[in-house]
Amino acid sequence: MDDIDWRPDPSLPIPLYRQIEEFMKRKIAGGEWTVGMKLPSQRDLAAAFQVNRSTLVTALEQLTSQGYIAGKSGGGTTIIHHQPERQEEAPPPPNWNAYVEDGVHYPNLPTIQTINRMEFDPEIIRLGTGELSPELLPQRQLQQLFAELARQHVPLGYEEALGSYALRSQVSAHLKTIGIAAPPSAILIVSGSLQAFQLISAGLLEKGSAMLLEKPSYLYSIHAFQSAGMKLIGLPMDESGLQLSHVERFKRQYDASLLYTIPTFHNPTGAIMGEARRRELLQTSRRIGLPILEDGAYEELWFDDEALPPPLRALDMHGQVLYVGTMSKVVSPGLRIGWVVGPQPVIERLADIKMQTDYGSSSLSQAAAAEWFGAGLHAEHCRVIRRQLKERRDCMLRLLDAHWSDFATWNTPKGGFYIWVTLHAEISMAALFERALKRGILINPGYIYDRSAKKQLRLSYSYASFSEMESSVRQLAALIGQLGNHLR
Amino acid sequence: MDDIDWRPDPSLPIPLYRQIEEFMKRKIAGGEWTVGMKLPSQRDLAAAFQVNRSTLVTALEQLTSQGYIAGKSGGGTTIIHHQPERQEEAPPPPNWNAYVEDGVHYPNLPTIQTINRMEFDPEIIRLGTGELSPELLPQRQLQQLFAELARQHVPLGYEEALGSYALRSQVSAHLKTIGIAAPPSAILIVSGSLQAFQLISAGLLEKGSAMLLEKPSYLYSIHAFQSAGMKLIGLPMDESGLQLSHVERFKRQYDASLLYTIPTFHNPTGAIMGEARRRELLQTSRRIGLPILEDGAYEELWFDDEALPPPLRALDMHGQVLYVGTMSKVVSPGLRIGWVVGPQPVIERLADIKMQTDYGSSSLSQAAAAEWFGAGLHAEHCRVIRRQLKERRDCMLRLLDAHWSDFATWNTPKGGFYIWVTLHAEISMAALFERALKRGILINPGYIYDRSAKKQLRLSYSYASFSEMESSVRQLAALIGQLGNHLR
Repeated sequence: MDDIDWRPDPSLPIPLYRQIEEFMKRKIAGGEWTVGMKLPSQRDLAAAFQVNRSTLVTALEQLTSQGYIAGKSGGGTTIIHHQPERQEEAPPPPNWNAYVEDGVHYPNLPTIQTINRMEFDPEIIRLGTGELSPELLPQRQLQQLFAELARQHVPLGYEEALGSYALRSQVSAHLKTIGIAAPPSAILIVSGSLQAFQLISAGLLEKGSAMLLEKPSYLYSIHAFQSAGMKLIGLPMDESGLQLSHVERFKRQYDASLLYTIPTFHNPTGAIMGEARRRELLQTSRRIGLPILEDGAYEELWFDDEALPPPLRALDMHGQVLYVGTMSKVVSPGLRIGWVVGPQPVIERLADIKMQTDYGSSSLSQAAAAEWFGAGLHAEHCRVIRRQLKERRDCMLRLLDAHWSDFATWNTPKGGFYIWVTLHAEISMAALFERALKRGILINPGYIYDRSAKKQLRLSYSYASFSEMESSVRQLAALIGQLGNHLR
Repeated sequence: MDDIDWRPDPSLPIPLYRQIEEFMKRKIAGGEWTVGMKLPSQRDLAAAFQVNRSTLVTALEQLTSQGYIAGKSGGGTTIIHHQPERQEEAPPPPNWNAYVEDGVHYPNLPTIQTINRMEFDPEIIRLGTGELSPELLPQRQLQQLFAELARQHVPLGYEEALGSYALRSQVSAHLKTIGIAAPPSAILIVSGSLQAFQLISAGLLEKGSAMLLEKPSYLYSIHAFQSAGMKLIGLPMDESGLQLSHVERFKRQYDASLLYTIPTFHNPTGAIMGEARRRELLQTSRRIGLPILEDGAYEELWFDDEALPPPLRALDMHGQVLYVGTMSKVVSPGLRIGWVVGPQPVIERLADIKMQTDYGSSSLSQAAAAEWFGAGLHAEHCRVIRRQLKERRDCMLRLLDAHWSDFATWNTPKGGFYIWVTLHAEISMAALFERALKRGILINPGYIYDRSAKKQLRLSYSYASFSEMESSVRQLAALIGQLGNHLR
């Protein structure tokens, strides 16, 4: 594409973005810019037109929505328009951007959208991610399992509303190993625990309901409940998890409907709620009539032999606890298989909404998951993963000790994926995120889990290789130093 | 279980259901009724207690929510309570039923809940179902495909927000065969078209938006849009589909945001919108600024060699049409794979919400679907299915001619799964549904597609065997006759 020597004229009564839009349309319509041609970067175009990046982006969005240009997944923008139409009085094409803005559901936070996108960049070092490294996934075992499945019968039809009976039976047996008694009829198969939250949000809670939860929490980083109009009310934590002192007052004050907790290897802090506190929480919950939503995503990922406290659901004698589990953190996120355990009317209600949402989870994934548990592969895989995650945790702790101890503190997680780091002084976490990204390092700033967590970040040792951990922990130390100096 | 000689006392100031609840708790707590014992049927219990069925059901729901009893998937209710707790002052367990009632999302219509449940009864004859018979699914080809997949690399991690690139490329090539030009970046992979509607509802429409659509329509039988607060405004149809005469007026009157249509082999009527009307619809849509949501679920399932009109999306030069497709109707519902094609900002918005809903569809299903198209299995399978569906249609039409021509009329579908039958006289469709069910025949009454369709039903020739079609068409004729006589 030739150099652009045209500039929009600020003295005209036409917005700058509109002038740019019209200029580019003329170039395309006149055949100067042809279909398939790649546009210069936004930065270069903005410089050429001497406008703000946001003005340029608006113009590009208009052109995109009208089908003249399209972004590419690898980055870059290309001209895709067919033949220009020259009827001056033709009505404008639909303004899809207005539709996008009208939608009820909140968009993901920009930081999270960036994380979701950048995680697919094969060059990126994922130092904050909530996912096992591909080398920790049971690839060999699952290939064999699929071969086995292919020899048997692969179910191709819909499964029943609760999920395939074979899988629910296996999950029931699996739950027994962590102390939870649940017959198959008390189990709903979902497409990962995120979907469980969506269903609970749509199926059990009134608009405007309040939900108590740990602060920080994974739940703040998703909009499952907020988009449906629910309020999240954060409770302070200590090293034993959720502090109970405020539960009753907050329940009254906000008329809370539910309490969400990740009692074991809390995301993002790694905290474990002790058994005494679990029992006390159950008592309080019962006394004040506040049911509990328990997220058990990480509880099999312990590193030490000392016994973990049982899940709340295992201690629950009065049907107070809805329990959510998933295969994503230990076996395979790509299967998209999780489960909800709860009282029958709740499970049936959620199943009905699940049927209305996607007619059930992939039969193929359900068959693979049932086979995984049925073939007895789970226990051995957990043993392997625990050992490997522990080595990775130890590596990360050593690196932090060596490079970060001057300016930060952190916990020593006894399981799970995460180290929750607190810097001694506040820096711009958004700037750290951006600068790290420029160096090919993806971190999860604390503010996505708690808006006020301005000195925190969640590091993960589950994905990056040992050498990636080393190089990125070093580089981040330098960046944090620069941002700290900059503040002074 | 012994005969029950106790009855609740209507003169007491305690509701009957509560008296029944307490009576049954005493029986259980006293050890008279033991864990694992099956309760008599609701009908028998209601008779024994001399109460309405609904009173009994309320009592049973209370006992279920408190964990004393549980329904079984095969029917029947069983006592599951452990040890009774005798603290009189103990607070009640959470009233989950109140939560179930508070949820924002509508429950499925009772008829549809029954259909969803009964479809899993292996003895039932499915004469209204929207699904291919298992013998029409490409079981052998897919078993081979899975074996192939198992030899290669099965993806176990998350896929990118739009869905796996491999699958989007294949879908892009597939869409070209039906005249739709869409690069992979304009395609979002979803878990079936129902999920596409959920995402569009949450992502593109304001609360209270109105949507025009054919009446009757499949969309009336699901709550994807209504649960999110959208209004559905039905437009009359003729044998060429949606009538256009009201579109502009209804768009103005209801400030409609979108027009939903199944232009080819409409569900439930089987109608095909002709090409002239399609072009006129696109013109009108453009002139009045009403984008279109096109559902292409059935368009590959034609029976005659005459050319079908192209999809609206193929005729759309101005980005007015969102197109939704699925693998469920032709290849395998269990895969839970469909796609949305649209302008980039829309696709990206929907992808962001999809990430917030379930972090993407099963990688396993996506890999299988990509392999299905990539291995060139689709075209041959379609040829086979078309031939077999046509034979089934012809069988069903012969049966209707022989047994129903005295009291009903119907269309001759040129593709798809359905025959839309109109009875000459109104009978109670709900009674027909119930009585057919008692004889093991599941039909889809017209009222689930249009509340006012009191003389219609949707028959399907895609699932039942030839002999099942014959026996059930005969039996239904007799039932319709009885219900008609009964009215006189």
